[in-house]
Amino acid sequence: MKKIEICLTPKLIPLYESVGKVVVIVDIFRATSTMVTALANGIIGIKPIMDLETCKTMREKGYLIAGERDGKQAIGFDLGNSPLPFLGGNYHGKKLAMTTTNGTLAIDTVKESASQILMGAFINMDSTKAYLKDTKEDLLIYCAGWKGKFNLEDALYAGALANALKDQYTTDCDSTLAFRTLFQTQRNKLKEFLSQASHSKRLQNQDIEKDIDFCLSIDIYNTVAVMEDGLVISK
Amino acid sequence: MKKIEICLTPKLIPLYESVGKVVVIVDIFRATSTMVTALANGIIGIKPIMDLETCKTMREKGYLIAGERDGKQAIGFDLGNSPLPFLGGNYHGKKLAMTTTNGTLAIDTVKESASQILMGAFINMDSTKAYLKDTKEDLLIYCAGWKGKFNLEDALYAGALANALKDQYTTDCDSTLAFRTLFQTQRNKLKEFLSQASHSKRLQNQDIEKDIDFCLSIDIYNTVAVMEDGLVISK
Repeated sequence: MKKIEICLTPKLIPLYESVGKVVVIVDIFRATSTMVTALANGIIGIKPIMDLETCKTMREKGYLIAGERDGKQAIGFDLGNSPLPFLGGNYHGKKLAMTTTNGTLAIDTVKESASQILMGAFINMDSTKAYLKDTKEDLLIYCAGWKGKFNLEDALYAGALANALKDQYTTDCDSTLAFRTLFQTQRNKLKEFLSQASHSKRLQNQDIEKDIDFCLSIDIYNTVAVMEDGLVISK
Repeated sequence: MKKIEICLTPKLIPLYESVGKVVVIVDIFRATSTMVTALANGIIGIKPIMDLETCKTMREKGYLIAGERDGKQAIGFDLGNSPLPFLGGNYHGKKLAMTTTNGTLAIDTVKESASQILMGAFINMDSTKAYLKDTKEDLLIYCAGWKGKFNLEDALYAGALANALKDQYTTDCDSTLAFRTLFQTQRNKLKEFLSQASHSKRLQNQDIEKDIDFCLSIDIYNTVAVMEDGLVISK
């Protein structure tokens, strides 16, 4: 049987074997939620980029550029890290280059080792689950966290996905046990529970409750976000 | 109001401020449980030591020496990392030098910065709670984990203590929210839930179920284990 593990922050990734594994990157508020939304609304590919300067140069190559640091849109970028501007297909047919505080760093640490990288979010959880049914490799769910620290929403999604996959994977990973159980007990009040999270509060202070609400919607897209040749595309 | 945070593993400690804080070190299986048991049964002081060789030399200074690596008693030591040999006061009046896989490392990373260091365990939780009532500093509960990884039993104790202290501390720490809640939902089946933990299984394989069972007993001692001048003593 396939094995599942959860890595709770990028600071812990050196302790996990990612070689040959399927890795699901999780950055609920908001990088992976935004990627899924963009792809579901007509963006044809997303290039995750580590630094702001390199990301900016992608405009010359015809990319739309999205840049976020500390939760805010970076100066000189077309977009920040909100999923909402993509709704309604405003950017249909475009390619997007994107750099964020936590999500793109997490992608960078496993891009050479993983057999496949997916972007996971509540808004496409069921599709990701269905896609994973047909993979043979062990699975590592990798939470982007907040500046290296554990965060609640990423861990809860990891627990939710692990719970949905319970019949397909075994585990001897304590993070998986903890967050599968926490999800089971909080699933009927997920938004209420996550509204206490530090990152929710950080975003509430920036007046983006709508983003939070949207990112915690479950299964509104059937897009699976998969990285191929450095580009995240829809499958 | 005082603040509370939980650091889930020594790998994450650089992200937390420990200067001037009270730090409760947690290594349920078994270093901190063993320290509390030893003190409650007549050991007069415990010197935590990082490496096996230095620990061994303490015998010449009249110390009883305890050494554990990977869950097993190290060769040439009087004791390993089990609380049970201390029961009944076999070592009454002695000093103990101790080195373990995870617990002593955690102590080492905060010994210069913390205002006070306590050793926390389920077996003396209520006494630790009562002691903390009279402290003024913010609190950091610091899980020793397993070789840098998150582990379930330390995080659950951290959640249990945070839950007991809910009225005395505020928090904006996601680990605290997560494990306070997980403890609340699992408190009536703690042993059953923790029997799934990876470390429980590791110890079960070594035929030390009695240790596990003992370490998950709640409030059997009123010893508070506090570090003073490099020595853990009973208060």
